[in-house]
Amino acid sequence: MKKQISLLALLCTASGAYAESAPKNVIYMIGDGMGPAYTTAYRYFKDDPATKEVEGTVFDTILKGMARTYPDDHTYVTDSAAGATALSSGHKSYNGAIAVDTDKKSVKTMLEIAKERGMTTALVATSQINHATPASFAAHNESRNNYNDIANDYIDNKIAGKLPVDLMLGGGTKYFIRDDRNLVDEFKAAGYQYGDDIKNLGQITQIPAIGLYASKGLPFALDENPTRLTQLTSKALGLLDNQNKEGFFVMIEGSQIDWCGHSNDIACAMAEMDDFAKSIEKAKAYVDKNKDTILVITADHSTGGLTLGAHGQYKWETDVVKGVKATAGKLTQLLLDSDDLESVWTANTNIEFTTENQIKLEQAKKMGEKALNLAVKSIISDASFTGWTTGGHTAVDVQVFAYGKGSEQFIGSQNNTDIADKLIGFIKQ
Amino acid sequence: MKKQISLLALLCTASGAYAESAPKNVIYMIGDGMGPAYTTAYRYFKDDPATKEVEGTVFDTILKGMARTYPDDHTYVTDSAAGATALSSGHKSYNGAIAVDTDKKSVKTMLEIAKERGMTTALVATSQINHATPASFAAHNESRNNYNDIANDYIDNKIAGKLPVDLMLGGGTKYFIRDDRNLVDEFKAAGYQYGDDIKNLGQITQIPAIGLYASKGLPFALDENPTRLTQLTSKALGLLDNQNKEGFFVMIEGSQIDWCGHSNDIACAMAEMDDFAKSIEKAKAYVDKNKDTILVITADHSTGGLTLGAHGQYKWETDVVKGVKATAGKLTQLLLDSDDLESVWTANTNIEFTTENQIKLEQAKKMGEKALNLAVKSIISDASFTGWTTGGHTAVDVQVFAYGKGSEQFIGSQNNTDIADKLIGFIKQ
Repeated sequence: MKKQISLLALLCTASGAYAESAPKNVIYMIGDGMGPAYTTAYRYFKDDPATKEVEGTVFDTILKGMARTYPDDHTYVTDSAAGATALSSGHKSYNGAIAVDTDKKSVKTMLEIAKERGMTTALVATSQINHATPASFAAHNESRNNYNDIANDYIDNKIAGKLPVDLMLGGGTKYFIRDDRNLVDEFKAAGYQYGDDIKNLGQITQIPAIGLYASKGLPFALDENPTRLTQLTSKALGLLDNQNKEGFFVMIEGSQIDWCGHSNDIACAMAEMDDFAKSIEKAKAYVDKNKDTILVITADHSTGGLTLGAHGQYKWETDVVKGVKATAGKLTQLLLDSDDLESVWTANTNIEFTTENQIKLEQAKKMGEKALNLAVKSIISDASFTGWTTGGHTAVDVQVFAYGKGSEQFIGSQNNTDIADKLIGFIKQ
Repeated sequence: MKKQISLLALLCTASGAYAESAPKNVIYMIGDGMGPAYTTAYRYFKDDPATKEVEGTVFDTILKGMARTYPDDHTYVTDSAAGATALSSGHKSYNGAIAVDTDKKSVKTMLEIAKERGMTTALVATSQINHATPASFAAHNESRNNYNDIANDYIDNKIAGKLPVDLMLGGGTKYFIRDDRNLVDEFKAAGYQYGDDIKNLGQITQIPAIGLYASKGLPFALDENPTRLTQLTSKALGLLDNQNKEGFFVMIEGSQIDWCGHSNDIACAMAEMDDFAKSIEKAKAYVDKNKDTILVITADHSTGGLTLGAHGQYKWETDVVKGVKATAGKLTQLLLDSDDLESVWTANTNIEFTTENQIKLEQAKKMGEKALNLAVKSIISDASFTGWTTGGHTAVDVQVFAYGKGSEQFIGSQNNTDIADKLIGFIKQ
């Protein structure tokens, strides 16, 4: 038996050199700001405390490895632009860079390579579609803040004579319909369908198309339309399916996990994670039916210094988090608009309206919106033992999830640039 | 070609059922409190900023997966006892449990199973050798705080008529040499060598043996003997090698990563990580020479809510961390003992003795040791942009590293109990 196993082992090792051909379709999903604490939190947030078992999440089914996120300087803490540039092109750069290197020269992105290869390309996000992460796939700019120039690139950055992105679903009418230039009209002139009503995704029936469903970012999942990214993901995959023999490349971003993290708003973040997880399930189901597809999910960095457990407490109170019905921004507005703070508070949280909390909120309200917003989040974080150390990003390694053809290539520790290199390798084959 | 590959692929998949036989030796290393932020921090701490490259660490070479750490309640935040009980036995329990279940009934540990199978067993730690983590392999008690009863178990908990642990290296004379019972004498009577001078590890030349090198825990690595765990690891592996045809089981704990985390002392933690990493390198080298060995490394939980980046700053200043020459405890003592705070401060850190820092330290010194200790750490954390949210533990998933025979079994997401189940499976074969 041992001799037979040895020969088989040898053959199996050797056959690695003759691995399956590369996947035809690439689904690349980025949870912006989604460090390990977020995926862990999501599992416990979804846990049904009535059952002894703590169920795994979709993330748990496909974890493969982790990635280093450091930018090309010695700060170790990346922003989303340098992060997405690394993830899209395989080149590390400085914070703020949109698909340019440290000399501010353009670096080729995998979306551009896919377009050169004749693949259909798509970007889906809950941010404006020209925000740092999607921008780093379709545009080039020395600064993420040049939103108008970046939006222009979505028309002007022609790849082998073609527009770079065949399908865009996200926000951003502020940047795409301007006085100086109406990019939506230019897209229409180029044959793109246009939609601007997320309640009527049926407006979009073809590729090429662009859907812009907000002036900038879409409303937070916790406040409105909690499965908007899931719907956009389904829409995109439905349109992309089987309409190009060269296959497709799509980048789908859970953009607002990061925004909630910056805000240190845990309920906000969990709702974004839920929408992102459901989007991943759609993508997984697509891979199950279309085996010539690789699905890779990662994060650009972590945000907020989120910790589960804080101030010496050995617990994370998910009941509190689950009970919060609005983002801090929305709840703050409701408290500002009402004289009956207690009713607003008890309608939107299950945290007791103690005298201490009442005083805290009343005094903060007197100081204004910013103070009240901080007070709301402080009460929620304290009640749930959620820790935060920053309104910015942190350097912790992030997770890499993969499913489908070639997913084993993402096992173990890697650099964020390695993820790009592997996917570019697939696209080029 | 495609048909041949398919047949080969089928054979390779099927052969998974006829996997290589189990490894003979098991090296199980636990970084207490070592969440993902710690291994990430360690990489950047070791980075040479003069080179563009950020070198990988030993951790990066062998990352396989991640593990859930939740205890058997709905807090989600474990302590080291419940964590180690899960890691040693495959059973989750309540915080404080030493190898007992939620009904306080003993659960069999992998060390006990190894002893039943005739393997040589060993425990190595920088804590007292009856601290929660090693205790959960060799003893049973409803509470981790029953240090004396737990120490007694190391003699009384006989497995198939034999003492449970053949080799112990760590601290704990306070618990093992007592007025009511002298366990060291009992070990000696049972044929164990005894050593108590870590500068003379040569005292120990055989198995069975017990080395107790401190009253409780050994001094912190940053303060004294920075490679003590590495030395104990080398010693243990040297003694364990090739002295039992059934092989050996050893659990090696980087105990004090957690202690530094509880203290929110980043320089302390990095020195412990360095000692642990060097110990891992020794273990890896052993596996390279003795291929019938599995090396698994994980953590029981994360500690302190450590974040790299804090207070809105997109950087983690490793130069500051590297410049700290003493633990906060030791530095506090030096500041208390001296009238010249500036000299002590500049001899032990590279942080400027600004007027602000001077006032902070002087005022804290007036308030006493505890306040001064907090002030010292606050200055160091602020200067390095290190974030902390708690003096306790947090619930984030931890990493799983593995090397050697059977290491592929640890790929992906798993429960901490799964790690135990897999190792127990190896030991039983």
